[in-house]
Amino acid sequence: MNSSSFGILGGDRRQLALAESIAGDGFTVVTCGFENAEFLDTDIKKADLRRTAAMCGTLLLPLPVTIDGKNVKAEYAEYPIPLDETFVEALEGHRVYGGMLGRALAACPQLEDVPMEDYYAREDFALRNAAVTAEGALEFAMREYPGTLCGSRCLVAGFGRIGSQLAPRLRALGATVSVTVRRSETAALVEAAGCRPVPIEKLEDGGSYDIVFNTVPALIFTRHVLSAFPHGMLLIDLSSSPGGVDMPAAQKLGLRALHAFSLPAKVAPRAAGEIIKQTVYQMMRE
Amino acid sequence: MNSSSFGILGGDRRQLALAESIAGDGFTVVTCGFENAEFLDTDIKKADLRRTAAMCGTLLLPLPVTIDGKNVKAEYAEYPIPLDETFVEALEGHRVYGGMLGRALAACPQLEDVPMEDYYAREDFALRNAAVTAEGALEFAMREYPGTLCGSRCLVAGFGRIGSQLAPRLRALGATVSVTVRRSETAALVEAAGCRPVPIEKLEDGGSYDIVFNTVPALIFTRHVLSAFPHGMLLIDLSSSPGGVDMPAAQKLGLRALHAFSLPAKVAPRAAGEIIKQTVYQMMRE
Amino acid sequence: MNSSSFGILGGDRRQLALAESIAGDGFTVVTCGFENAEFLDTDIKKADLRRTAAMCGTLLLPLPVTIDGKNVKAEYAEYPIPLDETFVEALEGHRVYGGMLGRALAACPQLEDVPMEDYYAREDFALRNAAVTAEGALEFAMREYPGTLCGSRCLVAGFGRIGSQLAPRLRALGATVSVTVRRSETAALVEAAGCRPVPIEKLEDGGSYDIVFNTVPALIFTRHVLSAFPHGMLLIDLSSSPGGVDMPAAQKLGLRALHAFSLPAKVAPRAAGEIIKQTVYQMMRE
Amino acid sequence: MNSSSFGILGGDRRQLALAESIAGDGFTVVTCGFENAEFLDTDIKKADLRRTAAMCGTLLLPLPVTIDGKNVKAEYAEYPIPLDETFVEALEGHRVYGGMLGRALAACPQLEDVPMEDYYAREDFALRNAAVTAEGALEFAMREYPGTLCGSRCLVAGFGRIGSQLAPRLRALGATVSVTVRRSETAALVEAAGCRPVPIEKLEDGGSYDIVFNTVPALIFTRHVLSAFPHGMLLIDLSSSPGGVDMPAAQKLGLRALHAFSLPAKVAPRAAGEIIKQTVYQMMRE
Repeated sequence: MNSSSFGILGGDRRQLALAESIAGDGFTVVTCGFENAEFLDTDIKKADLRRTAAMCGTLLLPLPVTIDGKNVKAEYAEYPIPLDETFVEALEGHRVYGGMLGRALAACPQLEDVPMEDYYAREDFALRNAAVTAEGALEFAMREYPGTLCGSRCLVAGFGRIGSQLAPRLRALGATVSVTVRRSETAALVEAAGCRPVPIEKLEDGGSYDIVFNTVPALIFTRHVLSAFPHGMLLIDLSSSPGGVDMPAAQKLGLRALHAFSLPAKVAPRAAGEIIKQTVYQMMRE
Repeated sequence: MNSSSFGILGGDRRQLALAESIAGDGFTVVTCGFENAEFLDTDIKKADLRRTAAMCGTLLLPLPVTIDGKNVKAEYAEYPIPLDETFVEALEGHRVYGGMLGRALAACPQLEDVPMEDYYAREDFALRNAAVTAEGALEFAMREYPGTLCGSRCLVAGFGRIGSQLAPRLRALGATVSVTVRRSETAALVEAAGCRPVPIEKLEDGGSYDIVFNTVPALIFTRHVLSAFPHGMLLIDLSSSPGGVDMPAAQKLGLRALHAFSLPAKVAPRAAGEIIKQTVYQMMRE
Repeated sequence: MNSSSFGILGGDRRQLALAESIAGDGFTVVTCGFENAEFLDTDIKKADLRRTAAMCGTLLLPLPVTIDGKNVKAEYAEYPIPLDETFVEALEGHRVYGGMLGRALAACPQLEDVPMEDYYAREDFALRNAAVTAEGALEFAMREYPGTLCGSRCLVAGFGRIGSQLAPRLRALGATVSVTVRRSETAALVEAAGCRPVPIEKLEDGGSYDIVFNTVPALIFTRHVLSAFPHGMLLIDLSSSPGGVDMPAAQKLGLRALHAFSLPAKVAPRAAGEIIKQTVYQMMRE
Repeated sequence: MNSSSFGILGGDRRQLALAESIAGDGFTVVTCGFENAEFLDTDIKKADLRRTAAMCGTLLLPLPVTIDGKNVKAEYAEYPIPLDETFVEALEGHRVYGGMLGRALAACPQLEDVPMEDYYAREDFALRNAAVTAEGALEFAMREYPGTLCGSRCLVAGFGRIGSQLAPRLRALGATVSVTVRRSETAALVEAAGCRPVPIEKLEDGGSYDIVFNTVPALIFTRHVLSAFPHGMLLIDLSSSPGGVDMPAAQKLGLRALHAFSLPAKVAPRAAGEIIKQTVYQMMRE
């Protein structure tokens, strides 16, 4: 077992990019659950769980570790990797990093005994992910909006991690940008970014926007609020499921309301894999 | 025949948006060659060529007027609109505006006698189109590049209408941007935009770029030049067909070289339609 | 005593602008300690302390309320406004807002019994002030640096309220910007802003910078650190007194190190007055 | 006479910076007319005209070469450098570069026989100078405007070399920017930069601006036009003397109208010297 060897257990395009990137840094990379994947770097090995664990000091689990609560998420796997006793044993004695560990722990309580760290729970990971999401939101909007962002009137609901990265990017591309705010502090930051703050309680007054981006994970775009916006307006919900928009109401009112969930994995898997790598490296240094 | 009525003869999604936009300005709009299209504005009429001409003082032809040299370009038409004598007669006595008239004139010499103006030949049209192309290039790059533009190293070949709009947008999104230049004046402008000028003769020295955008309509990315760039690099050719990249050589060298032709029509038909409208309105005022 | 009347007790150019701005909103404004000031708005009254208190429901004290601990800061006063019993009595029964109340309370303990609120202690005030400071830092740098910010290599030490507003502005003007960071979260934000994060422990490695801006209120630019920077480099200390730069060492090492204290009051008194007004209005609403 | 030696004949702070910069590139630099100047680079020589010419293959004259038509402009000279026969003889057989040669030729017709080149007449010089002027205009505005540019409403008259560099910088700092335009092409560029085009003929309608920048070298801000702008507004004239603003009328109307002539030499002499150097090097290569 080598401390400068990384085992990648399952995942999607992000973990595929992650494997390539770590190998590119000169480390040994062994993958399990990537039977159907093709790596550009021919030094990346494919192995079963037992051999991967035997060869690697550090094991990286995907984000999330599991979706169904039974197996490790592994889109490229020929054979499933069950969350069972064998899995727990394989992890023991390794440095283990995974994303959204909660679900996996609920599904497989024995994992409690394995010291694992959650990269998804870290603020630096969240911020880097938000930057990718913000750029992904631009791409999503460019694809769906038949005009150009340049010259468009945009409203960003929320000025948290994602909103505060999205609003200046929209403005930099030539849009006129308003941002909903709850607190006076946020209004100060919004103005300093060259955008117009809109008190959240005024949201129901609507406005002449071409595109609205929601980043708030709460139902703020209710039927009542939605009815104040112009027919045909594009509304992109970036908040995590179930989102902040009453979708059925939006459709009835003639708005083009769309979910844009999980943007990093979809629009920029390499950047997303890079972020996981940077975060894990940082955790190893700490 | 009404001088505040516009007849739209054929076209694609841009002309569809154009019809909606002109109708939204309160003018009467009659379309010919849109049998299979559905308009949001129910006041937009569908008619045959004769009736359209009879009702409208101004007739708008698509961009280009014709592709096959036989019929007017009309993607939504049930029945073709041939470039024949009937067509010439219908146009007579109207203000006629079209895009890329040359091809139509070559196909139907009798059109020479009809006073027509080419909106595509105007500088304001070209500049507005370039702005749409620049934003479309961002979208194209975001879709194809698995990382984020933020933090990427980009090279823009050419600093004309498109390059000079693309480079600052890339930088505004957080990329480090180099631009090829031929003349000292251009180098001055490139530096003033916070980008790094690269003399065109140094292009063959290559460089560590993640994405290269070509806007130069000449074969500057020859096999020799391409061989200086890193394997796996993304190269997007925005120049008009046949483009400025030796595509077969690029594939062989392991570069991801892609054409991005006709971006405005594809990525932002409404913006493209709006530009045609603005240009025609401007021409009518002059 | 009128609740829509504002009494301005002492101050500098900011309070002068504050008086004009509040009067411009249609409120009655009475000033005390502005005998030598000239107001553009002729409706602004000048009065003594007793009459000011009698006419106004809301009293605004300057920032800081006092410098010498004896009198209210009043640059335009013919007669001093002592922090004595008469002052305390005048304040009683009013809504009183002031900046940096601590110093005044230490000097005049009876003030403890007067309900006063400190606008300087609020986060929204601090953020708006930081925006003004960031722009003031640009002006200061432009004046002192004989080259242009466009094309310059800048280092910003600290990414708090001021640094996070300054770095993107520098980059927007065409500079290449590095930012010192302590934590991985901050590095994420710095990269998302198109800047380069430099771990604070690497500061002693120096670098080829044209201008360094310090925003950290701790002595991080020690002789040892300073010795790593190039002769002639401009170093602007934006942190509050006593600052974060070993000034004597800097001079000896041939660096141009300058303090830029109290920028908002100096470079943008009207903006600074506006911020006080916005904050007080906000406090009145809460 | 050495071809890699540069003789600097007279000038102001720009030529002082120019001398330092050329010496920093490793060339021999001899100065004439800098008796009262102090150079940081101790290798820079001071000599009289004859010796300077004897030692240097290339001679650089200031910008402008002469102001009074009698002597070379030389702010640091103890002894004047007359535009006489001796001067003409000294220049003969050298590569000579100067700025605004016209005035010197008018004053000393024998100079016609000396092959000289005018760096000021070149487009690359003009563009680089415009970039310095644009940044200088920001500094000027920040100093004179008591608010912040962030959040201000600006109008830029003209979108030529200077206006097209100034408008995006203002917007990047958070201002809302309008630009006067004459032609539809310019309107297209203005919109693509995220600014609002205002047809020049609408200038007389005025508008709610905080700051107006004039870059047009023609009297467009007549009394009639000025009367449409708000009392107290700041108007900065960047156009070359006599400027584009009816100054007496502006004062009477209560506008704060200021000239900002010769910004590069004043606000950024090092950058201005650098531009002369870059241009001369470029001319030597061509």
